[in-house]
Amino acid sequence: MTLYGKQLIGQNAVAGSGVTFAGLNPATNESLEPQYAGASDQDVERACQLAEEAFDRYRETSLESRATFLERIATEIEALGEPLIERAMAESGLPQARLEGERGRTCGQLRLFASVVRDGEWLDIRIDPALPDRQPMPRVDLRQRHIALGPVAVFGASNFPLAFSVAGGDTASALAAGCPVVVKAHPAHPGTSELVGQAIQAAVRACDMPAGVFSLLFGAGIDLGQALVKDPRIKAVGFTGSRRGGTALMATAQARPEPIPVYAEMSSINPVFLLPHALKSRGAEIAEAFVASLNMGAGQFCTNPGLVIAIKGPELDTFLHAAAEAVTRSTGQTMLTPGIHDAYGDAIERLSGNASVREVARGQSGEQGNSCQPGLFATNATDFLADEQLQDEVFGASSMVVVCDDQAQVQAVAKHLEGQLTATLQMDDTDTDVARGLLPILERKAGRVMVNGWPTGVEVCHAMVHGGPYPATSDSRSTSVGSAAIHRFLRPVCYQNMPEALLPEALRDNNPHGVSRLIDGKRDN
Amino acid sequence: MTLYGKQLIGQNAVAGSGVTFAGLNPATNESLEPQYAGASDQDVERACQLAEEAFDRYRETSLESRATFLERIATEIEALGEPLIERAMAESGLPQARLEGERGRTCGQLRLFASVVRDGEWLDIRIDPALPDRQPMPRVDLRQRHIALGPVAVFGASNFPLAFSVAGGDTASALAAGCPVVVKAHPAHPGTSELVGQAIQAAVRACDMPAGVFSLLFGAGIDLGQALVKDPRIKAVGFTGSRRGGTALMATAQARPEPIPVYAEMSSINPVFLLPHALKSRGAEIAEAFVASLNMGAGQFCTNPGLVIAIKGPELDTFLHAAAEAVTRSTGQTMLTPGIHDAYGDAIERLSGNASVREVARGQSGEQGNSCQPGLFATNATDFLADEQLQDEVFGASSMVVVCDDQAQVQAVAKHLEGQLTATLQMDDTDTDVARGLLPILERKAGRVMVNGWPTGVEVCHAMVHGGPYPATSDSRSTSVGSAAIHRFLRPVCYQNMPEALLPEALRDNNPHGVSRLIDGKRDN
Repeated sequence: MTLYGKQLIGQNAVAGSGVTFAGLNPATNESLEPQYAGASDQDVERACQLAEEAFDRYRETSLESRATFLERIATEIEALGEPLIERAMAESGLPQARLEGERGRTCGQLRLFASVVRDGEWLDIRIDPALPDRQPMPRVDLRQRHIALGPVAVFGASNFPLAFSVAGGDTASALAAGCPVVVKAHPAHPGTSELVGQAIQAAVRACDMPAGVFSLLFGAGIDLGQALVKDPRIKAVGFTGSRRGGTALMATAQARPEPIPVYAEMSSINPVFLLPHALKSRGAEIAEAFVASLNMGAGQFCTNPGLVIAIKGPELDTFLHAAAEAVTRSTGQTMLTPGIHDAYGDAIERLSGNASVREVARGQSGEQGNSCQPGLFATNATDFLADEQLQDEVFGASSMVVVCDDQAQVQAVAKHLEGQLTATLQMDDTDTDVARGLLPILERKAGRVMVNGWPTGVEVCHAMVHGGPYPATSDSRSTSVGSAAIHRFLRPVCYQNMPEALLPEALRDNNPHGVSRLIDGKRDN
Repeated sequence: MTLYGKQLIGQNAVAGSGVTFAGLNPATNESLEPQYAGASDQDVERACQLAEEAFDRYRETSLESRATFLERIATEIEALGEPLIERAMAESGLPQARLEGERGRTCGQLRLFASVVRDGEWLDIRIDPALPDRQPMPRVDLRQRHIALGPVAVFGASNFPLAFSVAGGDTASALAAGCPVVVKAHPAHPGTSELVGQAIQAAVRACDMPAGVFSLLFGAGIDLGQALVKDPRIKAVGFTGSRRGGTALMATAQARPEPIPVYAEMSSINPVFLLPHALKSRGAEIAEAFVASLNMGAGQFCTNPGLVIAIKGPELDTFLHAAAEAVTRSTGQTMLTPGIHDAYGDAIERLSGNASVREVARGQSGEQGNSCQPGLFATNATDFLADEQLQDEVFGASSMVVVCDDQAQVQAVAKHLEGQLTATLQMDDTDTDVARGLLPILERKAGRVMVNGWPTGVEVCHAMVHGGPYPATSDSRSTSVGSAAIHRFLRPVCYQNMPEALLPEALRDNNPHGVSRLIDGKRDN
């Protein structure tokens, strides 16, 4: 297993000529070999050109061969073995068990999309047969399928060096849809990225896929991402990161001569509502579970529970006391990068300096470099409603409790929230009426609404929605986790009066793939 | 049947206070009573506020009651009787038979969406049941449905005063999805708009729907539309019109604090490829059908065949000769508005003044006002490839033949095209190989690819795609005609570990609506 520090363009490894950077161990602040010279304009050009050249062949690969390709990527990643985990640990500061779990999720995700590709539901086949005798006008034969949008630019995320990076959810869903992918590696884990990139290259070779179906480019600044999104051959963008980064890409994509969709998953504070009976019956227990969720991965999850809403009173005091104790005795782990650590520190400082915010507890700072010192804060609902900045995401283990006077104020806070990835209700059966009053508000605010769970932990399955109204994401009509993510990279095409010899195979009468179809609007199996 | 010249806001008729305008008979240039005073800011505010207030109740109406409401709108429109057709004829210059057909299409469309609502496929229900014993981690119960985006702003189109106006496709699909609608009437047919608006108001009353589910605002300039798209309560936009108008709305929607989707159907020149054997065997026949399609509705269709591509030679000369004859003897009908007539004249003048364009034939101008004088032009492929302006849509009965040297040049022209609503192949069986070479290009360029038909005439059904890559539309991932249009106004929500008592009815185990569901990724019926 060797790292070369080069761009992976199609089947080649190409030395970049841009600004050079290297991975860094955030626990020790040591630089990690090798150096990565950033992608040049020619590298971007070549990767996009290869992707374009690969597109027509790749999008028409058989369902079986495309599924096999996705499975092969998973196998090749597993074959990287422990060196992948070791490199990812060194580059991210994340512990071994977490990264092994993330590798399992990454490979499971690829295999889930393989099964989705085989099932063919995503083709959304609709057939309205000809009605030659219809009055006053005959109807011609009309058939619809979905086809891939074109080459997709994927941005690796810092906080999931495997599951939302080079072979992560965006790559898996785009490849499943039939789109070649050009990945911009996240500069926080270039070595991990290169290893996974090599695994994908190997899968492309093994499955005899067109070389341009995958490329991986490196770059430390914003230029590379901007160049990718501007390239006319790129037809969609997948991004997980900051609101500033996501909105910049949205603006670039909209300013193109041909605007393209951007699927940016950006920021969310994931409100948790503690309903009265639950708070009363198990406030301390909820507090323990809450702090565990809060501290998971140093709070570096898009679904970190950054906001807790409850009504004032002795029950809330009990919760706060227990949560404060749990936070105080917790020790933060190393954060992903020094930059993220510094931003976390600045955000905590801003909160501490806000006259309407009270520090409830701070945890211990870990002994290793760039450790997160967990923080729990509180404010009252009136101040929260008056200060938009109190909704700013703090990326890291930090949460704020919003103390409300009554249920009406809880509703007001819920209505005041920006778009979120998740909303959570901690409730007992006797809270059902209160919950019923909140649900219509929360399902307009969030992509996922849950009861008696914690938002961290996103199941990769068919019903998952990891999405939500702006600014949680740029496009609430989709999800970036789960099998429905494939729809982001597809568009419908209608074939009218097309002779059998020209019809795409999936649309032929004999239903060669055996997929579920809508015939005259009715499902045929 | 009385016209009041007022805004229809919820169940009220409210006098506007903006700039006053009136309908105009384009055949006679006579002004039509009554005067319409444009909507004030308060009118916009009130309509959006009512829509927001109606939203939570309307989106949770039962499938049956929402379907009944759509059907009632159709019945109320039919109950308007001949005065609707007469007013529409006077305001649009379109002939009676066309408007009667369009009324049938409008009502059929509403009834189609009623059946779609009842079927419940649009809910896209996915259930991944809990797996409490799964290793290494249990899975919680996860269920997904789609919910309405929120109030939708719909812009009436000038060229379909019924089918793409107040109760047209965008309104029908948004209402079907559970979205209240605020319509901006097209100023070219205010009386038609008001009549249809009154019919919808009556349906709202009859079905006891919340008043704010529908409002209709009037305005002559661009301010009203801009104000609507900026309003924070509006969550999506449906528009059919010019590229300039559509891109202006896209920019406004993207500049909002919360950007929203815009479904703008803008411009298309709908290329028709005459393949060699078809051209040889039936060139003159194709020419006749082509000119009939070209002249339909004075060419004022988004799917007007504005571009014909073929290889030079005696076969093409035969086609051109026959087409020229047909154009020469054809008489253009009155165009929709003096503005459209003038813009058509300007565009024809620009073509005539272009040194690389040859006028093949002009038709007769009708005797009535604002008549279209059909035009057929030709250019060669080299010039076409060099001049982007030759792809500009001419709104009206005008088409350009692009003369190619060989099939390679035909392919080059196809690849050079902007996004289109449609692409058409005129072909015989012996052209199949040539067609096979064009198809992968054309399905990337257009939302609908057809064989041996003409693009005018858009079937309202399940498999239709009236959409396509930019600039044909702002969003190629959707259609504005056909039942799939409902998906434009929906977003997924996931319910995690939700007790039965709180679960939306459609997601409960007993499947109360009997809709097709994905259970663990497999379709259950």
